[in-house]
Amino acid sequence: MKPSENNYKGAFFLLLLSVFMTVTQGVAQNEQGTDEDAFFIRTIFDKALTEGKCYPWIEHLTTKIGGRLAGSPQAAAAVEYTYQMLDTLNLDKVWRQPCTVPHWVRGAKEIIRISNSVMGSVELQALALGNSVGTDPHGISAQVVEVKSLDEVEELGRENIEGKIVFYNRPLDPTQLNTFAAYGGAVDQRGSGASKASKYGAIGVLVRSMTTKLDDVPHTGGLGYREGVNPIPAAAISTNNAEMLSSLLKRGEVSVYMKMNCGMLSPKPSYNVIGEIKGSEFPNEIILVGGHLDSWDIGSGAHDDGAGCVQSMDVLQILKRMNYQPKRTIRCVLFMNEENGLAGAKEYQKVSYEKGEFHVAAIESDRGGFTPRGFTMDGHPDIFKEKAKKVTAWLPLLEPYGLSFQKGGSGADIGGLKDQKGMLFGFYPDSQRYFDYHHTADDNFDAVNKRELELGVATMTSLVFLIDKYGL
Amino acid sequence: MKPSENNYKGAFFLLLLSVFMTVTQGVAQNEQGTDEDAFFIRTIFDKALTEGKCYPWIEHLTTKIGGRLAGSPQAAAAVEYTYQMLDTLNLDKVWRQPCTVPHWVRGAKEIIRISNSVMGSVELQALALGNSVGTDPHGISAQVVEVKSLDEVEELGRENIEGKIVFYNRPLDPTQLNTFAAYGGAVDQRGSGASKASKYGAIGVLVRSMTTKLDDVPHTGGLGYREGVNPIPAAAISTNNAEMLSSLLKRGEVSVYMKMNCGMLSPKPSYNVIGEIKGSEFPNEIILVGGHLDSWDIGSGAHDDGAGCVQSMDVLQILKRMNYQPKRTIRCVLFMNEENGLAGAKEYQKVSYEKGEFHVAAIESDRGGFTPRGFTMDGHPDIFKEKAKKVTAWLPLLEPYGLSFQKGGSGADIGGLKDQKGMLFGFYPDSQRYFDYHHTADDNFDAVNKRELELGVATMTSLVFLIDKYGL
Repeated sequence: MKPSENNYKGAFFLLLLSVFMTVTQGVAQNEQGTDEDAFFIRTIFDKALTEGKCYPWIEHLTTKIGGRLAGSPQAAAAVEYTYQMLDTLNLDKVWRQPCTVPHWVRGAKEIIRISNSVMGSVELQALALGNSVGTDPHGISAQVVEVKSLDEVEELGRENIEGKIVFYNRPLDPTQLNTFAAYGGAVDQRGSGASKASKYGAIGVLVRSMTTKLDDVPHTGGLGYREGVNPIPAAAISTNNAEMLSSLLKRGEVSVYMKMNCGMLSPKPSYNVIGEIKGSEFPNEIILVGGHLDSWDIGSGAHDDGAGCVQSMDVLQILKRMNYQPKRTIRCVLFMNEENGLAGAKEYQKVSYEKGEFHVAAIESDRGGFTPRGFTMDGHPDIFKEKAKKVTAWLPLLEPYGLSFQKGGSGADIGGLKDQKGMLFGFYPDSQRYFDYHHTADDNFDAVNKRELELGVATMTSLVFLIDKYGL
Repeated sequence: MKPSENNYKGAFFLLLLSVFMTVTQGVAQNEQGTDEDAFFIRTIFDKALTEGKCYPWIEHLTTKIGGRLAGSPQAAAAVEYTYQMLDTLNLDKVWRQPCTVPHWVRGAKEIIRISNSVMGSVELQALALGNSVGTDPHGISAQVVEVKSLDEVEELGRENIEGKIVFYNRPLDPTQLNTFAAYGGAVDQRGSGASKASKYGAIGVLVRSMTTKLDDVPHTGGLGYREGVNPIPAAAISTNNAEMLSSLLKRGEVSVYMKMNCGMLSPKPSYNVIGEIKGSEFPNEIILVGGHLDSWDIGSGAHDDGAGCVQSMDVLQILKRMNYQPKRTIRCVLFMNEENGLAGAKEYQKVSYEKGEFHVAAIESDRGGFTPRGFTMDGHPDIFKEKAKKVTAWLPLLEPYGLSFQKGGSGADIGGLKDQKGMLFGFYPDSQRYFDYHHTADDNFDAVNKRELELGVATMTSLVFLIDKYGL
């Protein structure tokens, strides 16, 4: 870029101007969107890009508190910090909602090592999977069997699996445009691989890390043991190590030594953190914005899901700063324990149904703090079609910001609210970089871009505003 | 994200499936797009995401060669490397087009220091601007006058400017959604500030770095001296330092010492690097894809514009890999000296007009290797409207990939081809992160995401394919 390109830059100005003209003029024809709405949304973006608090908040959450797995002291610190921050916003109510969370700990660093191969002994870049049992204190050692799917374990049967370590090595499909689709196509190995392998007598499990990247960074994440199976230890290894292990297995038998010191302690008391602005006309119609406050223990949970938490808090901050008086109740919920149990979400739902609450809409941000592309929408079949139509009518107000709506899941913490027959939204940012950081030691403050994070706040605030103004 | 969210991920699958169905069915109605086109474009994306070469190429260009300012040995290495790489692709012709470039050198590191203030002496994070003259070997020292615009220099007049150092401190507007618009609104200070200040007798210039970020990283970039003015030294300082300097100036007089060892050496021979696949039916209709091979000396020119170069090369690689036989001539051009002279672009245009060539389309990638959003379009008024209509008819084929077309400048290297009355396109990726790296020591390999870069290749290749198949 050079100064003589002024006409090139000027063209961008004209482009933006024309976008703005479209917003401020074009929408007058829209049944709901008015010039006033377009100006209000433009002001939301201006405020979010200049007076947002999400960036210093996430800096504190990630650099001063760090990884905050449910039940950990850091999770307690995150509860206290976000409660205090919400309490500075002059909301109508800020509270902590008690819940009881599982308390899994990694313990001393895991050791996963190829103990016998043509290359001799090789240490692998590995992380115990969350919820996994540990190994015997002396570790375990066994021959490795590589598979590409849970089905392949069944096909191989007990005679080929018993006493062995099963190595799940089906990569994420790099041709999926949306990396969450690639993740969704591979994550059964991490979530259910240990149960399946155990059923056929395996004594341990290794899983290729859930990323399209080829690198040395292991990605942890939760597993679930099916009832009745013997829980066996499971760890993720980096994709480079997975490639190496696979190529060694092509050349002969390979044994792996696993020593993991992790395990489940007794459940701990914890909290969801909640703040709300009461609605003036329809206080019983709740618009929820939220993310999850817990993260994995390694890294500091910047994109997963510090971003979603500080964005949700900043939605309220921006509305208050604009002296916006909502008709409906706008509630920020920071859920505890999304990663390995959903205890916070379950408690929130239980209380909400007991109280007979109605969430006219719930918006979850849990796909990272990247440049916004829009929202996925979900809802009870009784209402979905009609309400989706109403939402889609707002498109002319949001398209100038590169946003759109698509049918798709909302989020793990709010999915359980579906029976209230409100609309569920998942904030949907650009997905290309998410699985570079997800569940790794690299998910830190420096991976977050301030403007991208702030644009997410503006996007979420704009949708909250439209729902509040027009209902659903 | 956790395994029990399978239905959430499943929804994404369905979403993508429906996108695919839209592509493969919906476009049958389109006047030009066919099912075959949709499948071909999907295959382009698959190939780019699995068999692209842009990522290893940019790794080499940035980590083995590095910053490559026109006239430098590294620029010569970049010419040789990209020539050799294009030569591996079995193209019909690969050549180096000679041009003569200016040769500016930074020399020993510049020193910019507040020499007298309430804080005492403070070293500033600074970079001489490209093309700037150096200072006297002993440096210069003078009182600082802060201004927010070139106009303000005029208003202050000679009596307030003479003998002083003018400090341009108008920030980029953070509320611009597109960061290039923010840049375009501030870059006159860097490009023309020195000439303006010199006209009123200033002896030096400091410019606030061209970024929306507040940090300690100075951003260099080119300046131009207007004919007849006395060239005075100019440097960029980091935005944090600009804020500090401004706040010190509010408290009293501040003097700054500048010592810069830069200057213009004699012009050097250099080259554009070009490769092409000859068209089978309309060989005289050229479709150009390109970027610029030179970069600033600091950093290693990863996003500006290593990305555009390797993407343009990969367009040809992918088409060859697919055994695509173009009807029209597809030409990759890596321009030399975009940053401080445009000598390569001017030579290319001169030769092209002399030969009576016709570029039916030219596409430049010079806005970084981020997630694609589409293209800006430009063209001679005689043809623009009609051709833009034709291009826009292809939208249904590209929208499933999140792409669109907008009116706007194309690129500094190809703008001069406008009189050939072909269509000019600027590849248009997400702009949020570009000015975190632009013209800094941080514009390096690790700032590039492999998938984002590859998606750009697929996007450019798809447009090339459509232009080649249907003409314009």
